[in-house]
Amino acid sequence: MTGKPRIAVCPGSYDPITNGHVDVITRTAMLFDEVVVAVVGHSRKTNALFSLEERLEFIKVATAHLDGVRAESFDTLVVDFATAVGATAIVKGLRAISDFEYEFEMNQLNRAQAPQIESLYIMASPENSFISSSGVKELATFGGNLDSYVHELVARRLQEELRR
Amino acid sequence: MTGKPRIAVCPGSYDPITNGHVDVITRTAMLFDEVVVAVVGHSRKTNALFSLEERLEFIKVATAHLDGVRAESFDTLVVDFATAVGATAIVKGLRAISDFEYEFEMNQLNRAQAPQIESLYIMASPENSFISSSGVKELATFGGNLDSYVHELVARRLQEELRR
Amino acid sequence: MTGKPRIAVCPGSYDPITNGHVDVITRTAMLFDEVVVAVVGHSRKTNALFSLEERLEFIKVATAHLDGVRAESFDTLVVDFATAVGATAIVKGLRAISDFEYEFEMNQLNRAQAPQIESLYIMASPENSFISSSGVKELATFGGNLDSYVHELVARRLQEELRR
Amino acid sequence: MTGKPRIAVCPGSYDPITNGHVDVITRTAMLFDEVVVAVVGHSRKTNALFSLEERLEFIKVATAHLDGVRAESFDTLVVDFATAVGATAIVKGLRAISDFEYEFEMNQLNRAQAPQIESLYIMASPENSFISSSGVKELATFGGNLDSYVHELVARRLQEELRR
Amino acid sequence: MTGKPRIAVCPGSYDPITNGHVDVITRTAMLFDEVVVAVVGHSRKTNALFSLEERLEFIKVATAHLDGVRAESFDTLVVDFATAVGATAIVKGLRAISDFEYEFEMNQLNRAQAPQIESLYIMASPENSFISSSGVKELATFGGNLDSYVHELVARRLQEELRR
Amino acid sequence: MTGKPRIAVCPGSYDPITNGHVDVITRTAMLFDEVVVAVVGHSRKTNALFSLEERLEFIKVATAHLDGVRAESFDTLVVDFATAVGATAIVKGLRAISDFEYEFEMNQLNRAQAPQIESLYIMASPENSFISSSGVKELATFGGNLDSYVHELVARRLQEELRR
Repeated sequence: MTGKPRIAVCPGSYDPITNGHVDVITRTAMLFDEVVVAVVGHSRKTNALFSLEERLEFIKVATAHLDGVRAESFDTLVVDFATAVGATAIVKGLRAISDFEYEFEMNQLNRAQAPQIESLYIMASPENSFISSSGVKELATFGGNLDSYVHELVARRLQEELRR
Repeated sequence: MTGKPRIAVCPGSYDPITNGHVDVITRTAMLFDEVVVAVVGHSRKTNALFSLEERLEFIKVATAHLDGVRAESFDTLVVDFATAVGATAIVKGLRAISDFEYEFEMNQLNRAQAPQIESLYIMASPENSFISSSGVKELATFGGNLDSYVHELVARRLQEELRR
Repeated sequence: MTGKPRIAVCPGSYDPITNGHVDVITRTAMLFDEVVVAVVGHSRKTNALFSLEERLEFIKVATAHLDGVRAESFDTLVVDFATAVGATAIVKGLRAISDFEYEFEMNQLNRAQAPQIESLYIMASPENSFISSSGVKELATFGGNLDSYVHELVARRLQEELRR
Repeated sequence: MTGKPRIAVCPGSYDPITNGHVDVITRTAMLFDEVVVAVVGHSRKTNALFSLEERLEFIKVATAHLDGVRAESFDTLVVDFATAVGATAIVKGLRAISDFEYEFEMNQLNRAQAPQIESLYIMASPENSFISSSGVKELATFGGNLDSYVHELVARRLQEELRR
Repeated sequence: MTGKPRIAVCPGSYDPITNGHVDVITRTAMLFDEVVVAVVGHSRKTNALFSLEERLEFIKVATAHLDGVRAESFDTLVVDFATAVGATAIVKGLRAISDFEYEFEMNQLNRAQAPQIESLYIMASPENSFISSSGVKELATFGGNLDSYVHELVARRLQEELRR
Repeated sequence: MTGKPRIAVCPGSYDPITNGHVDVITRTAMLFDEVVVAVVGHSRKTNALFSLEERLEFIKVATAHLDGVRAESFDTLVVDFATAVGATAIVKGLRAISDFEYEFEMNQLNRAQAPQIESLYIMASPENSFISSSGVKELATFGGNLDSYVHELVARRLQEELRR
């Protein structure tokens, strides 16, 4: 398989990117030549706090220290996006049992649609296993300390949007 | 990272290898240049039905159609074995919640010992998600049909050992 | 207990009916004389994609090959509906841990209200264990292949409603 | 399907039978004409506290008030036993997530061997959901009160065997 | 630590308080000198059926027989509320796996914000383990019997609000 | 309840005590006046690596910095031991789903035997959530680094007993 670059896709809403996401992306970048961080785009009905543009910008800033990582939005099935960018794998972090169940179901659907794209899972680091975008938003709303959970730019923007 | 071959380790007891194992090994071989199937060796107290030699032989036969796959036994921490063979990743299949919990714990211990070795998880295909070495042994004991679960050589040897 | 027909109820939203639902209904029909597929009606606030009438029609078409199966809507507690149609059992499919927890809670509430109605659970077949109405809608939205998951009529209607 | 009697099998080790088992058998007897309580026999290596004969006797005593219930031992695959007694269903109680996972695996193996035998699951009543044969043995060892968990004959025999 | 009173906080939405909540509060009151039942206030977007005032009133009535228990609303992080009332512990009931996962995540976030506040968990009694505020509302909507689940005042108000 | 000292029991095998155990004991000592670390004694058949005497010694050394903590062995039901030492609570750490299930069952059995003893659960700190006595023994067998998991005395003894 040597020769052409190996590409992985890390899909998600990233509303906003947390240090838990950065951990998964960093570890994926150790195993692949290129990592495409794929952000759920306009076509899915989401109640995102941040605009797609701002979510992409946050990822760019929070992963600026990593080589071979870029962010793109997608408005298709994730396996179709992965095929379009030439990826051979989708990589996701697993934090908890409920993640596991959801991912198990998605995995089977994705493999049925595109068997050539493999889905790989990385276990969250213990210090990141309790960070979620929604937990971070809850903290921001009530003035909790965000330093260990998100990039400082993201922390500032969360406070501007949510702080009571 | 292009240049040197990418190597993954698939560890387990393989007592005996099932079609579920072969599925994980096959999918790992799509993503890495070499796959070392690592079989738990003599140093761990196990009540294996088959000898280490026979378990290695079964793997060789059941994966003969795959390029870049070989089997070896190990008598160390799995991360030390992975380092010794030049692997960058350990790849395991996940079938169920209890697998997930055990693997989560092992993963953290392994990463603390050798952070440079990543552990990746592949979800079992639905048709393989209920195959386990112990279930196969139960079937063999009571004359169940083993055709969909193990290689024919393994099926014959299971029947010789266990059939009442 | 021989003499009068044994009746089971299979309740759900069926928005729309999938091959996973048909599997559960088929297996229930093997054990009971009559199966009433009970569709959540107008009285519960749902964001159903398809009208109640169309959901009932889909069930009729997808179960046309089965004897003793009919579909009805209900706007009461499911145990009251079961009592009204003379059923002795409610039969549901279990796909995952989260199904299990929810069903365990519902089961206790239902038994406290109507101890004479038993709830029975069937494990989803592995090839169906990852099919859900919501997954199927996601696939339809992004042009995925629906052939293995729903009846062709349902597939066509999903594409008309959701295809971008 | 009316005409010939409907038979269900309730398999287990029953070492010894608890009130939780009796609850499942009672509820099964409401839905079927005959219930065969199938006790794991001599051919499986078990560390049973009570002999097969005594386990069968306990079941007989604890279910004496139920019509159409009998106990037999089996030394085959449970689906082969079910076929031999003319059963159309295997009925088991589910108490917890780990029960669920194990049963899910067994269910798939059994259905692959004998698709005509359906496995049905009943959720344990909340007051029984924490009773297990092993918990009861632990209680007996240290002089705990067994009244709510087992038949008085079983309680007396447990105390004779285990009480320190 | 003897001397000043030991205070625990039992946080929740309490929309409305159920007998399951009362069980947890009662057991907490056995271990602490004072229990503050902390009700999620106006600042969180909730779709509560009952007003904050009525939810506080229900708690007052349902816990009137307990010494050292009072209800207050909070509009901050729960750990900040606990600190403000001089509590050393937050006590919550655990009913199911999904409770466990959510609480595990919250627990880590809370301890990172305020390490001096300990979170303790009590397992729901089996007879209460299937009672939830949402299940009770479902029952009320369709005329189910509420006697075993909530105080009679709460039952009456649920029926006034929801009965079809 | 002010006046007499509040006592909690932390039961376990402690073969050997890990930093995860010490975390639970430390946090319990913040909430109670006295903590009795209760070690499973001779009457239960265990395959303990270390003698009861050595396990008690390890606890003494590893908790020497904590006030109001002592270790004792017990050979009864844990609730009877708790009653005998005048405790009002049993405190245990929860690490994972399988812990939760086992503890839920034990909790119900214990409360049925001794309703006046409450069982409280503390969630393991994330950095301790993957430490178990068995994992630590596995590491010791294969020369892994034990520094973050156990007291240095325990580490040395584990290596003497297990290092190959």
